[in-house]
Order: sequence, then C-alpha cells, then structure tokens
Amino acid sequence: MSEQALVNSTLTSWKSIIERADKLFSNLTEEQLQKEVAPGKNRLIYLWGHLTAVHDRMLPLLGLGERVHPELDAPFLSNPDRATQMPSVAEVKKDWEEVNSKLLAGFESLSGTQWLQKHASVSEEDFAKDPSRNRFAILLSRMNHISFHLGQTALISK
Amino acid sequence: MSEQALVNSTLTSWKSIIERADKLFSNLTEEQLQKEVAPGKNRLIYLWGHLTAVHDRMLPLLGLGERVHPELDAPFLSNPDRATQMPSVAEVKKDWEEVNSKLLAGFESLSGTQWLQKHASVSEEDFAKDPSRNRFAILLSRMNHISFHLGQTALISK
Repeated sequence: MSEQALVNSTLTSWKSIIERADKLFSNLTEEQLQKEVAPGKNRLIYLWGHLTAVHDRMLPLLGLGERVHPELDAPFLSNPDRATQMPSVAEVKKDWEEVNSKLLAGFESLSGTQWLQKHASVSEEDFAKDPSRNRFAILLSRMNHISFHLGQTALISK
Repeated sequence: MSEQALVNSTLTSWKSIIERADKLFSNLTEEQLQKEVAPGKNRLIYLWGHLTAVHDRMLPLLGLGERVHPELDAPFLSNPDRATQMPSVAEVKKDWEEVNSKLLAGFESLSGTQWLQKHASVSEEDFAKDPSRNRFAILLSRMNHISFHLGQTALISK
C-alpha cells in the first residue's frame, strides 16, 4: 500500500540520518567533543545533547510515551552552551541511544493514518482548522533539524 | 486519502525550507554573499549556487524534464569554491527562482504512487531489488541537503 511505503521511506531516511549522527558523535574522543563548530559557536558535545533533548521531547509530542530525560533541557535546550553544568559524555551517549531507540520503536508502531493525526502541542480546534499540524510534519521537521546541525559539524576540520 | 496527505505534508515542508533559504539568500547584499560560513569554508554565494545546481539536477532525476542550467555544475558542484569563474549574483538569483519554480510544479503533478516509482539513476533491475530507491527518497534526501547547508549559514554572525 503506497501510504505505508511513503511512511517507510521516511523512516528509512530518519534512520540513516540518525546513524550518520551516531557515527559522527560516538567516534569522537572527549577532547574532540569539546571542539566548537566555528569560533565562538556551539561545541559538538552541546549539539549531541541538544539533539538528544529535542528527540526526548518528541516522545510525548507524538503521543509515544513520557519523556525519559527531561533533565537534558537545562544544559542543552533552555540554556546556551557553557551556561550550565553538563552531564558526562558517557551519560549523553547513553541517553542518546536510549531516546532514539524508544523513538524508533514508537515510530514503527504508527500507521499512515496515525501519522496524519494531530500532535500533542496543537488543540483539537486548531487542528481542525489546519490538519497539516500532524505527527508526520513533526517527523519531517525534526529530521531537518538533525541535518541542520550535522551541516554545522561538517565544518570542523578533521 | 492519507497517501496524498503524506505527500502534501512533505511538499509543505519542502516549500517552507525553500522559503527559508530564499529569504536568507535573497536579502543579502553582494558583499554579504562573499562571507564564508566559517574561516576558510564555502562562501554564501557558493552555497546558493550549489543548492541551485543540485535542484536543477533533480528535474531529470525525478523525470520532470530536462535540466535548465547545467552550466552551474562547473562553478558550484564539480569544483570547490574559488576554483572557477562564477556567474553574477543576479544570475544565480534568477536561476534559483526558475529552477525551484519548475521543480515545485513538477512535484505537484505527481501522485503518491508516482512518488514511489524509481528515479532515473537506478536501473529497473536494481529498483526491483530495492524499491526504496524511489522519487520520494530523493525528495527527502534533497530536503535534508538544504537543511544541512542552512545550518552552516546560521553560523555567520549578523
């Protein structure tokens, strides 16, 4: 059915981008993770934690469960890099893997019709007016968000 | 029909990212377009031309028509920034608008089933083995490609 095939294609893209990010971050030493993507800009460790926090928020946003690591918001989302104490690299890596694994399991449980249902941050009333505010739009938006930051990490000279 | 709704959601995302890129590049002066995204890295004008060349190549790749600006490949795709003579900013802007407009018209002509058909760079035989090598996968990949470079442009201090 082409509906499911479109969803599958999108999940394949999601997985390949997550793998790309995973390969990038997981292979760096603690010291390399302290590098900034450009002078005075975010460090790699901040971007890694930032993506993890944003993905953790997708769980309730897509109705896939409670957040597992709300404590990531302060160091990686509500504050800029270097403003607060950060968890260790080992902790970020563990959280990243856990969150993405839960997220993917949730994604794979949804049908095409369920992807088109409203996400949790839009009211029934607003969704009736604008049905494009659905789960699938969040998936696409967060996929672009990973690519956005991967583009920044590509500027660091190896 | 949810198949069409999934395609529409994806095209809405595409359009919003193109608009974001358009707003960014079109509002810069010739001088600002000479800025590098990070020291020694690509200039903004190069990224603008690069996105235009890559999108121009999507026309034949998706079976939507012939390329309109193959001459963009040398300055923006097959060679790095600063290696060859570049067209003027006015020319890049005109090509960017023309290519994206043709591309979007082509996108909007395709049904969900057509999005799942093979793209032009895969043989019938390989496509039979791996039906994920379809037009829709190219759309997602190129959308991530824009985001990848937009993330880089975001590093330039205003």
